[in-house]
Amino acid sequence: MACATNAISLSLSSNPNSKLSSDFIPKLNKPVNVSLRASTSAELNPGRLFLSRPIGLSRRNCANATPVMDQSVGERSSSVPTIVEVDLGNRSYPIYIGSGLLDQHELLQKHVHGKKVLVVTNTTIAPLYLDKVVDALTKGNPNVSVENVILPDGEKYKNMETLMKVFDKAIESRLDRRCTFVALGGGVIGDMCGFAAAAFLRGVNFIQIPTTVMAQVDSSVGGKTGINHPLGKNLIGAFYQPQCVLIDTDTLNTLPNRELASGLAEVIKYGLIRDAEFFEWQEKNMEKLMARDPDAFAYAIKRSCENKAEVVSLDEKESGLRATLNLGHTFGHAIETGFGYGEWLHGEAVAAGTVMAVDMSYRLGWIDSSIVKRVTDILQRAKLPTAPPKTMTVEMFKSVMAVDKKVADGLLRLILLKGPLGNCVFTGEYDRKALDDTLSAFCKS
Amino acid sequence: MACATNAISLSLSSNPNSKLSSDFIPKLNKPVNVSLRASTSAELNPGRLFLSRPIGLSRRNCANATPVMDQSVGERSSSVPTIVEVDLGNRSYPIYIGSGLLDQHELLQKHVHGKKVLVVTNTTIAPLYLDKVVDALTKGNPNVSVENVILPDGEKYKNMETLMKVFDKAIESRLDRRCTFVALGGGVIGDMCGFAAAAFLRGVNFIQIPTTVMAQVDSSVGGKTGINHPLGKNLIGAFYQPQCVLIDTDTLNTLPNRELASGLAEVIKYGLIRDAEFFEWQEKNMEKLMARDPDAFAYAIKRSCENKAEVVSLDEKESGLRATLNLGHTFGHAIETGFGYGEWLHGEAVAAGTVMAVDMSYRLGWIDSSIVKRVTDILQRAKLPTAPPKTMTVEMFKSVMAVDKKVADGLLRLILLKGPLGNCVFTGEYDRKALDDTLSAFCKS
Repeated sequence: MACATNAISLSLSSNPNSKLSSDFIPKLNKPVNVSLRASTSAELNPGRLFLSRPIGLSRRNCANATPVMDQSVGERSSSVPTIVEVDLGNRSYPIYIGSGLLDQHELLQKHVHGKKVLVVTNTTIAPLYLDKVVDALTKGNPNVSVENVILPDGEKYKNMETLMKVFDKAIESRLDRRCTFVALGGGVIGDMCGFAAAAFLRGVNFIQIPTTVMAQVDSSVGGKTGINHPLGKNLIGAFYQPQCVLIDTDTLNTLPNRELASGLAEVIKYGLIRDAEFFEWQEKNMEKLMARDPDAFAYAIKRSCENKAEVVSLDEKESGLRATLNLGHTFGHAIETGFGYGEWLHGEAVAAGTVMAVDMSYRLGWIDSSIVKRVTDILQRAKLPTAPPKTMTVEMFKSVMAVDKKVADGLLRLILLKGPLGNCVFTGEYDRKALDDTLSAFCKS
Repeated sequence: MACATNAISLSLSSNPNSKLSSDFIPKLNKPVNVSLRASTSAELNPGRLFLSRPIGLSRRNCANATPVMDQSVGERSSSVPTIVEVDLGNRSYPIYIGSGLLDQHELLQKHVHGKKVLVVTNTTIAPLYLDKVVDALTKGNPNVSVENVILPDGEKYKNMETLMKVFDKAIESRLDRRCTFVALGGGVIGDMCGFAAAAFLRGVNFIQIPTTVMAQVDSSVGGKTGINHPLGKNLIGAFYQPQCVLIDTDTLNTLPNRELASGLAEVIKYGLIRDAEFFEWQEKNMEKLMARDPDAFAYAIKRSCENKAEVVSLDEKESGLRATLNLGHTFGHAIETGFGYGEWLHGEAVAAGTVMAVDMSYRLGWIDSSIVKRVTDILQRAKLPTAPPKTMTVEMFKSVMAVDKKVADGLLRLILLKGPLGNCVFTGEYDRKALDDTLSAFCKS
């Protein structure tokens, strides 16, 4: 039985098109290898996936809806996960995506090394999911003991002081090199736990269990870990890949609307920089995403992870291509740092930053005005900001952007759109006046 | 003209023999590749190498001594460096060893990336060598600007608080990913600067300029970086390889005797674990080393670096073989941590730890008593301690050893001698009673 309100009629390729502008650093000619072991009976249990749902978009009445993509609907509470592989040679790892995956204990357990696990989480997530994760780690697995450290929640705690709490706990618990760290939470937890795992005893295994859209579509994949410095975001860290990423989409049940929207900023980013088809799909389905339609969300997560996995496989250490994932982030980081860590969510800052990057691209004559409008429109539909906070000044932007990781020999390189939708460049070769004009246009002083 | 007091008559192979016990983890069957581009006219200027020299061993009277190994003596103040290559695929790098290398500006400059350099040093070394290093970096190289950060001197400052000073300086100086960190100092500076380079912007280039025997023969080579935690040594860090290691043996001129002896503990270690010929050479030449004979020292540094480079090339991340470089270090770290960081020098603690490891090996019946005696004798000749401080208790040893990085799934693995001189094992399979007996024998309570 088809359910018209949820059917997604677009024809979608499982491998996103990679449309790279010729401006790209051309070193990256390794063949793309995003294997997608798609499930044959994947399911998103509509009764469990979301807490709140607007009237008219309920899936309860449409449990036998026409399958969207490769998901079929059944009675079990757990799905066979969709698997997206991050191809990095002997450090390759799977991203598992699906509903009820935390109930599939063997999925997590097979990636645990050693007999001791340290779950790193925060005060918001611990009451919701810590017991469930401990169960998943220990059920039928009595040899494993699980410790945990519960950090304060928020970007403003992503610093050295909080990181030391993880080391303290690990050392007090006498964890050794054959232990496993598990990051249970959003991007802040994933980044800090990953960096702690990279540095503890010079490197131990770790697993990402992201619980926010932001972390599920972006930060948990690809091995970027780190902490903030008072003068700039993510300035201290490591490239360090996890054993696996386990995305149980049920964890989105408890995610506040504002956090959900924040994650969509990164989803939109993938469309803009390299996947026009995905952007067009988002334009047609933004209301479904905002209404937490489970199939639409599962698809958005999968396609985002495919894009991320492909980029990371081609350029793990960000020698060029990978930097494009930072569209809007240079402006965004300036907002986060200048306005105060945690005042705006990361995705909110990225959304405003994306509008600024797009504005600058237009001023440079690199895109036409229709793209500017489409970007602003879709961000507004995602209830995301399209301009920086009014208190941000040109000087605040410039001082933070000067210490951005993409500065090379003093030259700030930016990700800017260029050409038709889905194309971008990462370049330091742009007219400085366009940057100044953009900053002036978005700041009062 | 031969100079009898300094001539070394042993015939020495340039590649140390690698004698591995069958107990070794057998994964490491990659071919050994220690290339040694030996100099043809290397020189150690005897008038410059050492500040103090005992009567009767002065080289001033024997400037034309018979060449030892591949060094010939001439009039120039700088030598053609001996080069030992650390073979790690695309992360391979050279170790330059010689007198006056800091005057050979091109040697350093060719390994600098980017336009900005941060020299990390300490309050002891800065007045002695900072200007010289800045000269070496900038002479004829006006595009490079050099910043520096001068840390307090000593193992007790090898912590997160001091590390943050490096990040602060790097960020305030607006260093970007194309900068180079230079570690100028002993092991503490090398370890901290290396970890800072590993974590700053998720990794920037760095160069090691070790100024102590300890750093020149051991810690600057192989990419182990890190800081201490109040509960244990080197528990937080990274494997991160430098661009090059530049060992200007002239920097030993200013090294106090106690520091010099401390470094010899690691030199002795190489002989014990894998290079019996080198140990025998040391037995014959310890007085020369203690008298700072330049040729003997140059040889000891070269042969130590060859041993270290070979082990690191075979097992960079310490899956087995590399752990053997930690002979005596597990007991030694317990002394350093339990007795207080900086009370004993690292090599002093390692010397006492080596005696304990050898004692335990003998109790297990793995070596004969002659080796025990030879180890104690040579350490005493090097003016190194052969027992832990009297205040150390069995409990202090056990509590620190429990968090040692070589613990795996709760089992403490140790490096112990086994078989003829030059053979050792890295194993958790030993009679616990032997460990208890050794601890009891060396502690009053």
